[in-house]
Amino acid sequence: MAKIDILIVGGGPAGLIAAVAARKNNPDKKITLVREIEKCVVPCGLPYIFNRLSAVEKDLMPDKAYEANKIDLVIGEAIKIETNNKKVSLKNGEEINYEKLVIATGSSPVIIPVKGADLNGVYRIRKEIKYLENLREAIIKAKNIVIIGGGFIGVELAEELSAIKNKNISVVEILDHCLIANFDEEFALAGEEKIKEKGVKFYLKTAVEEIVGKNKVEKVRLNNGKEIPADLVIMAVGARPNVKLVEYAGIKVIEKGGIWVDEFMQTNIPDIFAIGDCAETKNFFTRENNLIMLASVACYEARIAGANLYRKEKNLVKNNGTVAAFSTYLDGLVLGSVGLNELGANKKNIKIVIGKSEAPNHHPGTLSNTGMIKVKLIFEKPSKILLGGQVAGPENTAEMINLIAVAVQQKMTAQELANLQVATHPLITAPPTAYPIIKAAEMVLSDERIS
Amino acid sequence: MAKIDILIVGGGPAGLIAAVAARKNNPDKKITLVREIEKCVVPCGLPYIFNRLSAVEKDLMPDKAYEANKIDLVIGEAIKIETNNKKVSLKNGEEINYEKLVIATGSSPVIIPVKGADLNGVYRIRKEIKYLENLREAIIKAKNIVIIGGGFIGVELAEELSAIKNKNISVVEILDHCLIANFDEEFALAGEEKIKEKGVKFYLKTAVEEIVGKNKVEKVRLNNGKEIPADLVIMAVGARPNVKLVEYAGIKVIEKGGIWVDEFMQTNIPDIFAIGDCAETKNFFTRENNLIMLASVACYEARIAGANLYRKEKNLVKNNGTVAAFSTYLDGLVLGSVGLNELGANKKNIKIVIGKSEAPNHHPGTLSNTGMIKVKLIFEKPSKILLGGQVAGPENTAEMINLIAVAVQQKMTAQELANLQVATHPLITAPPTAYPIIKAAEMVLSDERIS
Repeated sequence: MAKIDILIVGGGPAGLIAAVAARKNNPDKKITLVREIEKCVVPCGLPYIFNRLSAVEKDLMPDKAYEANKIDLVIGEAIKIETNNKKVSLKNGEEINYEKLVIATGSSPVIIPVKGADLNGVYRIRKEIKYLENLREAIIKAKNIVIIGGGFIGVELAEELSAIKNKNISVVEILDHCLIANFDEEFALAGEEKIKEKGVKFYLKTAVEEIVGKNKVEKVRLNNGKEIPADLVIMAVGARPNVKLVEYAGIKVIEKGGIWVDEFMQTNIPDIFAIGDCAETKNFFTRENNLIMLASVACYEARIAGANLYRKEKNLVKNNGTVAAFSTYLDGLVLGSVGLNELGANKKNIKIVIGKSEAPNHHPGTLSNTGMIKVKLIFEKPSKILLGGQVAGPENTAEMINLIAVAVQQKMTAQELANLQVATHPLITAPPTAYPIIKAAEMVLSDERIS
Repeated sequence: MAKIDILIVGGGPAGLIAAVAARKNNPDKKITLVREIEKCVVPCGLPYIFNRLSAVEKDLMPDKAYEANKIDLVIGEAIKIETNNKKVSLKNGEEINYEKLVIATGSSPVIIPVKGADLNGVYRIRKEIKYLENLREAIIKAKNIVIIGGGFIGVELAEELSAIKNKNISVVEILDHCLIANFDEEFALAGEEKIKEKGVKFYLKTAVEEIVGKNKVEKVRLNNGKEIPADLVIMAVGARPNVKLVEYAGIKVIEKGGIWVDEFMQTNIPDIFAIGDCAETKNFFTRENNLIMLASVACYEARIAGANLYRKEKNLVKNNGTVAAFSTYLDGLVLGSVGLNELGANKKNIKIVIGKSEAPNHHPGTLSNTGMIKVKLIFEKPSKILLGGQVAGPENTAEMINLIAVAVQQKMTAQELANLQVATHPLITAPPTAYPIIKAAEMVLSDERIS
């Protein structure tokens, strides 16, 4: 039986970064990572294996960090944790004793429980190479493709597939708009518009009632009675934490399905940490638990867990809760969102004041290919502390949502943002006279003049 | 004689934004802006009027904000300030009485005092439409163009002109590298490389000894004896504050040439403010006075002055000193710089620790057109507070320097930056596992493991 110091279960971004951070903080410890599969895909890259990347194997996570950081990589399935003996058993009979254990088992895409969900031709976006290769083949052959779910993966898939010739792409979304779980309506609409222009059809405020077919999917019946012809159905309706391994080990799982963790990424069992999609997240503002599943959040948590493994209490790195920073790119349009939005604030009766601004992404606007940047900032009322923001704009605004994300994490006020110093340049930014984050913050100040 | 509340002298970005901010903060005051010229150019856009923009008139600042904010625009030259009578006289004999005066007279490009500087064919980048139109004509006709000075304007001009067919472009720079006043060598070199690839010749560590010609420039003689043929010479060697108007009015000017201001943008004379290129700036860290001439800094100061005009002491908005955030774009390469760099720290014997990282600007890196992002962060030692940063990368990294600028202004630590939450997306950012700002910050932490 192997006896090691640090054991990480799971080889996605969370597991990898936890291992690297563990090594950085503990140069002399013996670190092992166990993962089920020979090669891991880059999860956020998956929508792009169907066209932009020409093969699944172009979307693989490189393993060079394991050797570089002296991390033993074991391919195998962990099937049992004995927390008293500090032991993990693999399916092949191997047992590993650990001092510190990090659970990073990820999530699996949900299947909606409708009739026909088990037909041939119904897929999800699973993180398995062979499965994805089959899906890729199926997409190439298909003419009528129905995507169920208009969240990030759904719209990114729709955009990616719309660039392939001779496909009829439809997206069925139960909410009022695609992306509306993360964006206010005007931003969600801007995204929808981009994909509509590519010929994708939307069925909004609509649920799927049945996937119809004999052996193979033939059509999708909606709850309004309408039927859409379908050679292929892709369910992109969210994911559930993989917690089977921990369920019987006495490791606490919250109601929503993720592993409970404290602010240092520790589970309820000493020396066991959980990170990434399998762990709950806490809202940065409200501390409510939720399940934000993003590789960026997973890496954030992994760095914290990796640092905390052997630290004494006063040196522990703290997870401040997730600000939920999202971005996507739809046919030339960057959409970014962080923290609270207007819809979310209204739902929770949080009093807010909103600043908005639009500006060209170049200056002067007479430069060719000038597009518009749209910024919306949400401030707490009356403190005018920044609670969140959204951005839409051309490619050169890609990092603007991260500037806002920093401001949210720093709890900056409208006054501080109105007095921000930024670099501007004609060919790559909005003009200094109209930098949209500054203007949006000023808008909130202008109604409280002090003399 | 006109009697108004707020008078602003100068119609560049500083003047315009001061007027708008003054209006926002003082809805009922009478505001007048005096400027010398009928139409103002966008100063940062000037390098691009020669090719990307096809005419000088495509680089004009729109005047619509004046009417929208009920600001009276007077075209005329202010020639005298009487601070006791609170009166400004114009060249046409008109006199204006003010309650509050904002000086935003800008700067003028320097002429280096070499023989031949007055020859026909020797130009500077003056902010005058007719002059620039003449220069534009001269550039079209010229074959051999020598740019003296490799700062931002010099290299931007060189890049812009290198895209026009059949030009021999040379840049003469007295320092070791172009852009080296604002970037460490590796970044300056990356910029130089981009322009070299476009066929521009560099003469580094080289001074101009004489501009040679009879009536018109024929060649440029360097201090190493070499002569470069020249039909046209453009001096881009910096600018000097326009302070003639204030010199005899008892308004204090610092040794370096800018108007002295306190942290609220007030001059030494009550009710007179100064902003933009004509005013001194103070370093964010050291409080040393300097002359950072940037439209973005000018707008920052203008917003502060505009807010402070009628405020009581406790409500005054404070200028924290400039962090000097710069960016440029050279043939597809974004270069950004903010705060202190390694060269600057060494010169001042400031103890620093440096974090560096490189990452692809897409993920996975197998996506087409993937370029590399290079980040360098400078932290104070031993506090590990961020003092500055530099970025080089493709277009989608344009706003990354502004994220770093926010972090500098917030005095963030390496630990806070290593634990930053950011949005990542395959098509528009570095991967979450290798986001370069986080990695550069981690590098600084990794040598102080706490157990």
